[in-house]
Amino acid sequence: MTAPGAGASGEDSLIARYFRPLATEPGAFDLADDAAILKALGEDIVVTTDAIVEGVHFLPDDPPDTIAQKALRVNLSDLAAKGAAPAGFVLTLALRTVDDAWLTLFARGLEVDASRFGCPLLGGDTVSTPGPLMISITAFGRAGPGKMVRRGGAKPGDRVVVTGTIGDAALGLDILKGGRVAAAFAGDNAAREMLIGRYRVPLPKTTLAPAVRDHAHAAMDVSDGLAGDLSKLCAASGVSAVIDMPSIPLSPAAAAALAAGGVGMEALISGGDDYEIVCAIPEDGFEDFARAAASAGVAVSSIGTVIAGRAAPKFLDAQGREMSLPRRAYSHF
Amino acid sequence: MTAPGAGASGEDSLIARYFRPLATEPGAFDLADDAAILKALGEDIVVTTDAIVEGVHFLPDDPPDTIAQKALRVNLSDLAAKGAAPAGFVLTLALRTVDDAWLTLFARGLEVDASRFGCPLLGGDTVSTPGPLMISITAFGRAGPGKMVRRGGAKPGDRVVVTGTIGDAALGLDILKGGRVAAAFAGDNAAREMLIGRYRVPLPKTTLAPAVRDHAHAAMDVSDGLAGDLSKLCAASGVSAVIDMPSIPLSPAAAAALAAGGVGMEALISGGDDYEIVCAIPEDGFEDFARAAASAGVAVSSIGTVIAGRAAPKFLDAQGREMSLPRRAYSHF
Repeated sequence: MTAPGAGASGEDSLIARYFRPLATEPGAFDLADDAAILKALGEDIVVTTDAIVEGVHFLPDDPPDTIAQKALRVNLSDLAAKGAAPAGFVLTLALRTVDDAWLTLFARGLEVDASRFGCPLLGGDTVSTPGPLMISITAFGRAGPGKMVRRGGAKPGDRVVVTGTIGDAALGLDILKGGRVAAAFAGDNAAREMLIGRYRVPLPKTTLAPAVRDHAHAAMDVSDGLAGDLSKLCAASGVSAVIDMPSIPLSPAAAAALAAGGVGMEALISGGDDYEIVCAIPEDGFEDFARAAASAGVAVSSIGTVIAGRAAPKFLDAQGREMSLPRRAYSHF
Repeated sequence: MTAPGAGASGEDSLIARYFRPLATEPGAFDLADDAAILKALGEDIVVTTDAIVEGVHFLPDDPPDTIAQKALRVNLSDLAAKGAAPAGFVLTLALRTVDDAWLTLFARGLEVDASRFGCPLLGGDTVSTPGPLMISITAFGRAGPGKMVRRGGAKPGDRVVVTGTIGDAALGLDILKGGRVAAAFAGDNAAREMLIGRYRVPLPKTTLAPAVRDHAHAAMDVSDGLAGDLSKLCAASGVSAVIDMPSIPLSPAAAAALAAGGVGMEALISGGDDYEIVCAIPEDGFEDFARAAASAGVAVSSIGTVIAGRAAPKFLDAQGREMSLPRRAYSHF
């Protein structure tokens, strides 16, 4: 990114106008250089990168501030699941045109979240594209040396724990697309808005990062569906798991839709965009973890147990019958 | 990025198949986790990010290995100009479809360069897009604390020094697009290929990084045209410059095109994609810098002098007349 001045281009002015206020770290050099400095401060730098694409991860008429927030938050969600504290991010923005009204709202949404989550903008790149809007963010966190929480590490006997509620974002997307769930919520604006909000603006569990770091044997964020993401965690750990489906936390709206037959449990646990954390907590650490989560303001639910084996996790209903899950997770390809 | 196994999606297999061999750092965790670890090793982490878009920065029928190389090299070029040694990178790949032949060549090109420049893959994200291919890379370097070379810092009396030759890539692009330069090189395949190669696969001046760090008051890479980029360096430093145009290094092919009237000097110094380094070297350090550059195998040319003032740099011809430069640099918007 580049400062304006002699030779300033449209791109430089764009960056100065919209994004410099977010560059609060000295190492960002006011976005007036070709690179930024990130200090490790004696810790490990945790690096994660996630991109969102118009029409795939967000809809063309989503509010620009929520698009910006989602782009940053999906990365903050990864950092939280890894037990890392946010340190900063770089932004690549592929735009068709420079739309001042859109950019003003986009930058404002990003600024609010950069400040709220303590994750300042360090640099970036803006490019023109004839295609869909795309926002790619690489975010940095800090964790004590060797303390990043891995996917591997879950052990038989660990509790499988998940934060928040599962499946709301998938319902919100269905509503936005006018799918069959939309009709079920036609008369309930509050529920519709809550579900759409969960899709558009996930809440990264940043405050839970220290508890994850102190207690979890393994953790990852739930972004592509609980069933698939838990399968990945188990595969990386060389274990399996048994999940008690009635223990999977649902919002009142999702529970109502499920009860009314508007949606099946398999859709809720294989839909994407939850941005909760799933983790394996040893039995003897669970009480401390739950207490730390309560202090952090994050709801946690124990939904099952890690077991030995290599099979994909089993999801059992109230009668102990295993649910068949032909499609466990969202995949781009 | 994610390991295959239970719950492995198409995306995961894609990553495992094509990109795991590039993840040679322990901190990349074989691309089998949600984040990577970057060790600072007591130095500053230098962060830069640059994206390339099909139809804008590369052409749809460019060879896939050269597209990968360009995507990484434009970032390595930034690190070199900042005096930083490569430490690793993360990759975001937006694809329309999974084309095995294309991805095989793309990954091979990336692997060759990751190894050649000592810059391993740490992680990334693949997303589907209905639009043009886009490759966004965030690259990391290491420099001693406080040692990153800034754009600001050039002082009156410093020499303006540029590496390599200027304008070749702009000619190469013109040839690929069948522009008016193409005709001038119709009979000279060797020259055509050299110029096209300069556009497709720039050579980052990684070996020059230590000399830049030890000697330059200010530096940046030349990516959007020498005239515009030097203007930015001067603006950031609060200085101006006088450039002797006949001293600007040209390849024999570019010099021939210029002599034949096929292209003007203003096009050569305001075209993009050179990926050379322009820097301000104090007079008393120039000899040492030139010696270090020779050892590093990088040609350097002294092309002018930094002067006091705030005006845009002046480009003077052999008769001392100032060239008018209505368009100093490429801008996306």
